[in-house]
Amino acid sequence: MRRTVVLLSGGLDSATALAMAIARGERCCTLAFDYGQRHRAELAAARRVSSALGAERHEELPLPIGQLGGSALTDARIEVPAPGGAGIPVTYVPARNTVFLSLALAWAEVLDARTIVIGVNAVDYSGYPDCRPEFIAAFQHLASLATKQGVEGRGVAIDAPLIALSKADIVRRGTALGVDYSLTVSCYRATDDGRACGRCDACELRRLGFAAAGVADPTRYVDTGQPYE
Amino acid sequence: MRRTVVLLSGGLDSATALAMAIARGERCCTLAFDYGQRHRAELAAARRVSSALGAERHEELPLPIGQLGGSALTDARIEVPAPGGAGIPVTYVPARNTVFLSLALAWAEVLDARTIVIGVNAVDYSGYPDCRPEFIAAFQHLASLATKQGVEGRGVAIDAPLIALSKADIVRRGTALGVDYSLTVSCYRATDDGRACGRCDACELRRLGFAAAGVADPTRYVDTGQPYE
Repeated sequence: MRRTVVLLSGGLDSATALAMAIARGERCCTLAFDYGQRHRAELAAARRVSSALGAERHEELPLPIGQLGGSALTDARIEVPAPGGAGIPVTYVPARNTVFLSLALAWAEVLDARTIVIGVNAVDYSGYPDCRPEFIAAFQHLASLATKQGVEGRGVAIDAPLIALSKADIVRRGTALGVDYSLTVSCYRATDDGRACGRCDACELRRLGFAAAGVADPTRYVDTGQPYE
Repeated sequence: MRRTVVLLSGGLDSATALAMAIARGERCCTLAFDYGQRHRAELAAARRVSSALGAERHEELPLPIGQLGGSALTDARIEVPAPGGAGIPVTYVPARNTVFLSLALAWAEVLDARTIVIGVNAVDYSGYPDCRPEFIAAFQHLASLATKQGVEGRGVAIDAPLIALSKADIVRRGTALGVDYSLTVSCYRATDDGRACGRCDACELRRLGFAAAGVADPTRYVDTGQPYE
């Protein structure tokens, strides 16, 4: 069976996308990036999730894009904002999904994988341009031209299974597939041991998702050290 | 004036592409990648070329894609072949130009640059899929969707000024613009001090280019330590 490369951030969405690919019987190789993100706990979360869900292999690639500047997620001089506000937020990392998909494409070419899974979501995308369906379609087209497999007529499919789902839908799907969300970290300001601030955009989306899905939120928050009640 | 991001490998082609952008009066920021290439001398060459041609800034980004395997250029277990042979060569680095352009796009977004210059060449492309005009066009489309500038209606142009030129044409253009090709390194097996093997694909293309252009070849070769006669 052909392999599948799954972009795995350590958060709720990509864990769910991985569980969906595993459930289809695919041999999944997971890829995380150390791009200098403040929330280092997500890298440990990605390793845990990959192993717990039964991926074949996990790679963590150093990617010092913080050196190029421009995002609150990699630049300590820019403050991570409270939720709300219009437009593209400062937590946006320049061209992040383009960079991540490109590296997934490189690995897919080496592994002769036929599918790349990315857990982007257009509903909760918070104004990030590279989470939209037209972006995914454009990358799919690029991938068909960019690689040896593409030239030889065997392209790679870009699978974005969460793109049209609400956070509640994602939580329901993952819960049905047995994802242990206590292993995941979504918070932009997570502590090194994986506790969430409870106040950033990512925390709010996650908390509302569990609430709307009617699923108990297993997130450990900084204030209480306990799952949110 | 808006900035331009120039992908600069340290080789002959990208040095020429940089000289062309500088000659147009653009403020160029050059970007090189330390992707574990065996030919380390090209990174020093990129720094020299950037400075000599008057770029505004040079960044060298570590990018350990060798960790993903699959190329003779980053994997010491795969032998760099002699010139010739059909199909896509083992010196092809998986999805390399996709990855390089993605990171250039990220930097362009941070710098609010309007142009990305890449010195790819479809004539001498040696079977690399990501050196073709249709690949560049697909990346241009992707870039228009992937970024904050794209969403706001100000895309970035992907400029591949050498794509239809022969190596001789490139050498002639660069020579007319005053490029000092003795600063550049093309060889896949260059020594640390920048001497060329004289026998790999890249050396052969380069040597034939100088010969066809009727320009003295300033390359220092391993055998003689002298420019090729």
